[in-house]
Amino acid sequence: MPELEANDLMEKVVSLCKRRGFIYQSSEIYGGITGFWDYGPLGAELKRNVKELWWRQMVVLRDDVAGLDATIIMHPQVWKASGHVDTFNDPMVDCKVCKGRFRADQVSEIPCPRHPKMSVAQCPCEKTAPRPFNLMFKTYVGPVADEDSVAFLRPETAQAIFVQFKNVLETSRQKVPFGIAQIGKSFRNEVTPRNFTFRSREFEQMELEFFIKPDEAVEAEAGSIAEPSGSGHPGEPQRNWGWRAWLQYWVEERIRFYESIGLPRSSLVEYWQKAEELAHYARATVDILYKFPFGTQELEGIAARGDFDLSQHQQFSGKSMEVFDEETRNAFAKLDEEKRKALWQRFYENKKVDFGKRGCPEDQIEKRAREAADKLLRGTYIPHVIEPSAGVDRLVLALICNAYDEDKAPDEKGNLETRIVMRFHPRVAPIKVAVFPLLKNRPELVAKARQVRDLLRPHFAVFYDEAGAIGRRYRRQDEAGTPFGVTVDFDTLGEKGAALADTVTVRDRDTMRQERVKIGELVEWLRERLR
Amino acid sequence: MPELEANDLMEKVVSLCKRRGFIYQSSEIYGGITGFWDYGPLGAELKRNVKELWWRQMVVLRDDVAGLDATIIMHPQVWKASGHVDTFNDPMVDCKVCKGRFRADQVSEIPCPRHPKMSVAQCPCEKTAPRPFNLMFKTYVGPVADEDSVAFLRPETAQAIFVQFKNVLETSRQKVPFGIAQIGKSFRNEVTPRNFTFRSREFEQMELEFFIKPDEAVEAEAGSIAEPSGSGHPGEPQRNWGWRAWLQYWVEERIRFYESIGLPRSSLVEYWQKAEELAHYARATVDILYKFPFGTQELEGIAARGDFDLSQHQQFSGKSMEVFDEETRNAFAKLDEEKRKALWQRFYENKKVDFGKRGCPEDQIEKRAREAADKLLRGTYIPHVIEPSAGVDRLVLALICNAYDEDKAPDEKGNLETRIVMRFHPRVAPIKVAVFPLLKNRPELVAKARQVRDLLRPHFAVFYDEAGAIGRRYRRQDEAGTPFGVTVDFDTLGEKGAALADTVTVRDRDTMRQERVKIGELVEWLRERLR
Repeated sequence: MPELEANDLMEKVVSLCKRRGFIYQSSEIYGGITGFWDYGPLGAELKRNVKELWWRQMVVLRDDVAGLDATIIMHPQVWKASGHVDTFNDPMVDCKVCKGRFRADQVSEIPCPRHPKMSVAQCPCEKTAPRPFNLMFKTYVGPVADEDSVAFLRPETAQAIFVQFKNVLETSRQKVPFGIAQIGKSFRNEVTPRNFTFRSREFEQMELEFFIKPDEAVEAEAGSIAEPSGSGHPGEPQRNWGWRAWLQYWVEERIRFYESIGLPRSSLVEYWQKAEELAHYARATVDILYKFPFGTQELEGIAARGDFDLSQHQQFSGKSMEVFDEETRNAFAKLDEEKRKALWQRFYENKKVDFGKRGCPEDQIEKRAREAADKLLRGTYIPHVIEPSAGVDRLVLALICNAYDEDKAPDEKGNLETRIVMRFHPRVAPIKVAVFPLLKNRPELVAKARQVRDLLRPHFAVFYDEAGAIGRRYRRQDEAGTPFGVTVDFDTLGEKGAALADTVTVRDRDTMRQERVKIGELVEWLRERLR
Repeated sequence: MPELEANDLMEKVVSLCKRRGFIYQSSEIYGGITGFWDYGPLGAELKRNVKELWWRQMVVLRDDVAGLDATIIMHPQVWKASGHVDTFNDPMVDCKVCKGRFRADQVSEIPCPRHPKMSVAQCPCEKTAPRPFNLMFKTYVGPVADEDSVAFLRPETAQAIFVQFKNVLETSRQKVPFGIAQIGKSFRNEVTPRNFTFRSREFEQMELEFFIKPDEAVEAEAGSIAEPSGSGHPGEPQRNWGWRAWLQYWVEERIRFYESIGLPRSSLVEYWQKAEELAHYARATVDILYKFPFGTQELEGIAARGDFDLSQHQQFSGKSMEVFDEETRNAFAKLDEEKRKALWQRFYENKKVDFGKRGCPEDQIEKRAREAADKLLRGTYIPHVIEPSAGVDRLVLALICNAYDEDKAPDEKGNLETRIVMRFHPRVAPIKVAVFPLLKNRPELVAKARQVRDLLRPHFAVFYDEAGAIGRRYRRQDEAGTPFGVTVDFDTLGEKGAALADTVTVRDRDTMRQERVKIGELVEWLRERLR
């Protein structure tokens, strides 16, 4: 819809979301609560579809991924190990006059509450130096609120996967390479939530941690590491894939997923983070961005995180996060001495760099790197990980922005008016098919329409609507993004003869074209068009 | 399994849950965190199935229920209005010596930390009088942690439904009677979490608020109120149903749901709370209990709550929670004077009682009751509500306890051994069908088995397993509760002639009987048995 300005589009989207029950402000009757949003009937179904499709592609249809459903509140040590307690901060400035607290990087933009013509940076009020403000919501577990009972609401679902890695490995019959997937709520006490649901304080994530062998193990087993092309889908996983091929694989898998639910590739941007942008533990991170009306922003990040997370939890918990890999051990045992030494050396050098970056005491780096390399040759290692991490809410928002369209349609008198139509892919559409009796006050139409509703309902999400002019009922379903509308009319009842009896009119949301379909063939007809 | 003692059963269930990846302790590698549990691969699927089936029955298959997906953190006024801030408490006793905090009703059971031979009630330590301890987890939203930024993790999902009642009503095309359903996490800072996942601090709820007309409106419209039989399913909703018939309807609907997923009616107890047990706002509450090994305990409560919740939110938010009901208005307009007066009077008397109970100032009770009764005659009222409120985690636990069984099966040498088998209803079973090649080291078997896997996977949750003796692979699936195991053997490949070619062995989990089924008919064969 290029004719719509981005600002206009966002305003229209927000208005439609409220008006049609996709998204409401949380606690609206109490004035709302900043950064929290509720999903109404249509939004809840849209979100359910998105999560279900992700789970299906990432878990159900794969042999090599297991699911997990962990708690939001975990042991606080989890967040020490992950680094969130120490480093998940925004620097904040406190004003000693008005007691306000401001993000240090925004003081030049925010007006001073006491001197509204000046920014906080310019005003004469006495302020503190920037101090770190942790973004995790804090609470206390148990009857006594003290330092021993502090707990946090998880700021990401990923850590539970690392924490339960060994349990899943031992109970699921998976072997590296394999993944663990989780969908669930996360919380971040954002200082400035914004862009509707895009950056909120309570949100849902869909995260996969895909555990792979270190490259040296792959090379020992396969002889060499596959050279990834750097673009395009590398196809079915191969045993000679190192982390680069796996990263490319997951980037392409994820983009294909977005395409499969209706986001065209042209609406997405694949952004490879530059070396200086990477977190210290990340070997590479690819962001998948969507062209939102308010800017091109991240939908998902796919990070190659090495063995950082499992190593941290091993260190902080004292519990081994290593796997024993018989294939790796056998491969090293069969390797010629020179190759074995070369791989040992490479692994050792990488480990030294890792340990150095992670604050290992200088005098222990060599010893620990040596131990790790020795272990690798015996088939024992901490798996590396590729992490595709997506936000449910921002994906839902992207689907809504992408679906929003306006065109022209005739009203009851034949005059062209603007029609709002949500062009959702049928897979994500909250309602798949609406069923209408042409008129509400004709019992035989209503009875037949209800039969059709009951016929379809076990197979599709059906909405049944009797009230109002048929044109207006169509229009309401256009705004809900319902791909098909089925109308039971007098022809259905056989009033125009046997040829049309037991047929219904099926209206296509996008083309507004109507087609007669036999009721007996309706389920199959719709099934073909809704997959 | 009557031969298993309850204690034994519980121990076996807990052990199986860990061993097979149904349920792990949260943050286990850090010593765990009391009252928090994670679902492993099998548990996550079981829980997903339970939630999906509930949503399907309560929302998807009905015209009169809309879904909602609201935030866990809401405006704190929500919990003032609901009464949770003031009354959601356990009375606690603080010890001034050891600084311990104990539930007042448990001081005679808990040993004193300083005098372990005495209970806290008996010990000489100085203690406070019992003081209320609120069970809501508290946190702060925004950069400054002060009284203005206090927020709570919701202790139930129900309140969001009331808070968004008007938004849903206005955007969903529903009319009273209709319901709003929600599934989501809730949190209670239980002092003594216990009975495995039964009473935990973070849990998931499936709640429906079903809004109905006040009985006086029903009587005005239908002439009289249906007399509920008090037992059995009252059938399809009728327009002359008052709250008693609706309550009975939902009790039966919910029990039917439990039966439909494998809990026999004999494992359930329907408990009608006695007058003295009821909360002050409840007109009646029916608990559906399950006979857990640790006692007969609540799975779900179904409460007739009158108009308490919406009235509270109307009062605290200043926003109207009333609906205008044209049918009610028209009915009252057509009523003869005597009947109209009688209904007015009855509604007025009930309202006086309600306002009295709810702390309305004495001198306003009559006036407000009169206003409400006057409004009713004009078709304006606050809907009443029936609330079926179920716990996901306790239902999952009930399903696990109910499914656990032991019988005898021959091992590889034909000796009978004890077999653990989870007799899940196919609808909830985490895996529906397992696919095995008879031998792992025969590429043609493996290739064929993978074809079968790929054939079934779009339709059912499939687990593919090649490793180990086939008997042991069966046994593992018995413990996972997988209803069917499909084995590809040499007959499948045609080695015993054309008659058996392209057939597979399907093994029934419960009977352990095996049957040959044609691959071409396998999807249909399984579909019939898995519904």
